[in-house]
Amino acid sequence: MESSTKMLKEIHENPQVVAATLASERPRVQELVNELKKRRIDLIIIAARGTSYHAAIYGKYLFEYLLGIPVSFTAPSMYTLYNRPVKVDNALVIGISQSGSSQDIVEVVKEATAAGAFSVAITANPDSALSQAATATILCHAGREEAVAATKTYIAQLTALALFAVLWAERADLLETLQAIPEWIAKSLALDGRVQEILPRYRYMRGCALIGRGFNYCTALEAALKLKETCYLEAQGYSAADFLHGPIAMVDEGFPVFLIAQPGLALDSVKHVNERLRAIKAETIVLSSDPELLATAVIPIEMPGWSEDVFSPLVYTPPLQLFAARLSTLKGLNPDAPRGLNKVTVTR
Amino acid sequence: MESSTKMLKEIHENPQVVAATLASERPRVQELVNELKKRRIDLIIIAARGTSYHAAIYGKYLFEYLLGIPVSFTAPSMYTLYNRPVKVDNALVIGISQSGSSQDIVEVVKEATAAGAFSVAITANPDSALSQAATATILCHAGREEAVAATKTYIAQLTALALFAVLWAERADLLETLQAIPEWIAKSLALDGRVQEILPRYRYMRGCALIGRGFNYCTALEAALKLKETCYLEAQGYSAADFLHGPIAMVDEGFPVFLIAQPGLALDSVKHVNERLRAIKAETIVLSSDPELLATAVIPIEMPGWSEDVFSPLVYTPPLQLFAARLSTLKGLNPDAPRGLNKVTVTR
Repeated sequence: MESSTKMLKEIHENPQVVAATLASERPRVQELVNELKKRRIDLIIIAARGTSYHAAIYGKYLFEYLLGIPVSFTAPSMYTLYNRPVKVDNALVIGISQSGSSQDIVEVVKEATAAGAFSVAITANPDSALSQAATATILCHAGREEAVAATKTYIAQLTALALFAVLWAERADLLETLQAIPEWIAKSLALDGRVQEILPRYRYMRGCALIGRGFNYCTALEAALKLKETCYLEAQGYSAADFLHGPIAMVDEGFPVFLIAQPGLALDSVKHVNERLRAIKAETIVLSSDPELLATAVIPIEMPGWSEDVFSPLVYTPPLQLFAARLSTLKGLNPDAPRGLNKVTVTR
Repeated sequence: MESSTKMLKEIHENPQVVAATLASERPRVQELVNELKKRRIDLIIIAARGTSYHAAIYGKYLFEYLLGIPVSFTAPSMYTLYNRPVKVDNALVIGISQSGSSQDIVEVVKEATAAGAFSVAITANPDSALSQAATATILCHAGREEAVAATKTYIAQLTALALFAVLWAERADLLETLQAIPEWIAKSLALDGRVQEILPRYRYMRGCALIGRGFNYCTALEAALKLKETCYLEAQGYSAADFLHGPIAMVDEGFPVFLIAQPGLALDSVKHVNERLRAIKAETIVLSSDPELLATAVIPIEMPGWSEDVFSPLVYTPPLQLFAARLSTLKGLNPDAPRGLNKVTVTR
């Protein structure tokens, strides 16, 4: 099965996107971090929507894990509808928007900068309203993305956040590890064959759940969004812990559940959900490098043996992007132009 | 159709639960607020899971709207899996757990208290581990809840948070408004007849979306969880703004979407989604007191003309709880004992 959608082509550009963002942005981010260190930062506030919000969730885990600084997401309606900006004393405010033109995100950053906060724009467009509103900008080097569903630009946002957190935390060890990510993504993209192999089984799948824990909570949410956007599926992402607080009740025999199970401290939690799902005889599709877990999967997807939990979303997301892009085509849909969506969403 | 499930009975206790919580807790909360005012609070951190997490989202809107203090939700995995508690300088930490025994929530509050933060437990059990770990406790007076799906205890949590925020913000006007909530809930429970009238239409509904904005974002999430737990439906809650960032692509003709449209500054945003849904010919079920919006609904549910946005989740949630409880019975399920769930969920 050969397909030549833009979405597929863009997913395969992920390794170059990471390499370009790391190489180009490192000096700029180092400078930004030097400025930031002159300030007291007790709190990070992030404003983002849609796919960028999933990148923001990755940012939350990065900053809390590496720096111990609590992260809050804005409820943009507090700014744009209720006109109640929160206090930003000792806060760093980050706005994430690929186009840099999401008006509600720009509004949050503009208010925060005016109130004296240090603010950072993460965007592909240095001339955007978001970039102009912020104290500093980190650029995503993903090139032009033609498919409506964001893939390589999401990976670029994850890269920008990882670089930022690692330089701020002065983790030279992780900075080195980060340089190896492009080749690990290339390995995970090599699973395209495996994805195509299992694909026909899901031709008539109506809904599914995707489970991640810890750093890959964002991956579960983002993969679910791709399946909604490009395959029109009722796909839902959950953290392994939240899933047991109610949603597991909707799962019956044969219900498809993707388990995103990177090695590390979150693995046991996903394994526990896996046991529950096996008892229900759910259809488990397991992305992991753990032999024990793979052996119990209905459909195993053996991931490259990447062992750094902190950057695992960069490695675990691409095969799921491939799955969404290829399933869309298999269903006779056009993944490049989902119904009802535009590249830039206007929030009212 | 008469039904005598515990869940239904408990939903009808909502007015008394609110009245009891307001009456019993006001002195205790006032005392807590007096202590809190001696401190500098730049940030509120809330730890909660499942239904309690939806109450936490209401808390975020309350505290940000009434006090301008940013609210962050813990990623409990930072504490229990990764062992990286965040810094809590100048932070108030709130743990919400009905039983007070959710181990991961207890852990967050214990760590925060030990690190010198002022911490508050919101729980039904004054002898619980959560209560013992916190500086102060606000009690939910819901009495014993026998159905596994939380309904009146959720309303009690919302009440505790509303009382806390209003007293802290010294809003005597809103404190007075709050006293009237039990009778407004009684009015919204009177919609039980309307719920039963429309119910048969949804006997074979497979999935649905629920949309709220602003203060009722939590209502959309909580109602979706009730439908998952008691009716095993793929039901999803969204903010009106997020819904347009992707998920709307999955909606086609006849797909059921509940619109929670309280009067106030968020109404226009929901109306905008309504227009998009009408163009797709989706099945819109509209909870509102706005005549214009009701007139365009496929299935209108006319809410009592309550006009205080800040407390609207207390009034708009009960009819959706009724809908879930009655639909479960109609489907031949037992809403009091959903498969795969226990009253207390252990997180690993």
